[in-house]
Amino acid sequence: MIKLAILASANGTNAQAIIEAVRDGRLDADVRVVLTNKEDAGVISRAQKFGIPVEIVPSKGHRNRAEYDALVVAALEKYEVDTIALAGWMRILSEVFIDAYKGRILNLHPALLPSFKGATAIADAYSHGVRITGCSIHLVTLELDAGPVILQAAVPISGTVDELESQIHRMEHRIFPQALQWFAEGRISVQDRHVIVAPSAAKVRKTDFIEGCLVSPALEEKI
Amino acid sequence: MIKLAILASANGTNAQAIIEAVRDGRLDADVRVVLTNKEDAGVISRAQKFGIPVEIVPSKGHRNRAEYDALVVAALEKYEVDTIALAGWMRILSEVFIDAYKGRILNLHPALLPSFKGATAIADAYSHGVRITGCSIHLVTLELDAGPVILQAAVPISGTVDELESQIHRMEHRIFPQALQWFAEGRISVQDRHVIVAPSAAKVRKTDFIEGCLVSPALEEKI
Repeated sequence: MIKLAILASANGTNAQAIIEAVRDGRLDADVRVVLTNKEDAGVISRAQKFGIPVEIVPSKGHRNRAEYDALVVAALEKYEVDTIALAGWMRILSEVFIDAYKGRILNLHPALLPSFKGATAIADAYSHGVRITGCSIHLVTLELDAGPVILQAAVPISGTVDELESQIHRMEHRIFPQALQWFAEGRISVQDRHVIVAPSAAKVRKTDFIEGCLVSPALEEKI
Repeated sequence: MIKLAILASANGTNAQAIIEAVRDGRLDADVRVVLTNKEDAGVISRAQKFGIPVEIVPSKGHRNRAEYDALVVAALEKYEVDTIALAGWMRILSEVFIDAYKGRILNLHPALLPSFKGATAIADAYSHGVRITGCSIHLVTLELDAGPVILQAAVPISGTVDELESQIHRMEHRIFPQALQWFAEGRISVQDRHVIVAPSAAKVRKTDFIEGCLVSPALEEKI
């Protein structure tokens, strides 16, 4: 069982997917707090609907990232969490935060890393003209969007950028709870850059998909 | 119908896949010549087995790429080809070559571009620890491995790097003839960086997979 904080800056659909996975018994986590840097973030009402405490730590007006991150770490302290899920956290983390939860911060990135790092990954993949993009859950290190990859999903590009965005989000909502569950089961270890997922000890699997890779079901004949 | 030259530096399994696609009626191409820069390349005997003329233009001893590429262009001249398939051509092209076949050079790259450009893409993806890699067919521009993408296939990583290599090759052998067939049918156009594949005019499709994206069938339950 992990004691989880979810950090989110925006709408919070991934936070909700994680919370629902807990509710449905697919994820052995205690979601102790949702923390956001935006007072009007959609994630606030989503968390409240499920009775999860919300902390708002506004990110404006700080001298640097370290100063802000120290406030976030302080705000999390009383919840005694041991694992952090960055579910659309639109801020780059400083050493202050990364050291406080070393090796236990999972980030979602809406592209098949190492392609399309940065804050506009979906639009970047779309305008680059690739045929396949996706999403990644990775462990956070100081280098932006570059930590060891736990799980990825591939999504073919067809249709508009809005359609692509919703297809990617749909995959995110599946892989993030899955990666957290592997974490909760103590099955994740890292060798060099490789994430090793140990075989499950449980007789009954809580998950319904393959190790480390998921492919969008949207692959239909189109010609 | 395209008049095709295949350029290959090594074993030639992709050249063979293209030649077999022609033989089997899946690709409307006349493979007029196979050209290699290596006197001991495996592609030579493969081409000869199918009765395809072979040109060997050794790449050693030239002052620069342009000088060598001029020899290649000269060697191709008598075959009157209009389309070039780079099927494991381990040389960076100069403007001399690219201008001679402008917009009609297709390259195979064994990764999901823009990830893992360069000559060691499969090993790079493996050692980077990504969960999904693949292969790409793209139009060649002066910038290495950066031209508009026609078709990609996603391959999940599991097992050894050798197993990954053979899985990627298997996908290459499917997508390269497919991309060439779209070319042969005159269905490919480029807008900005986007490759547009026009709908097929043929009543009977010659191909068996989806537009612009193919996913490895190796996605099995593993947990």
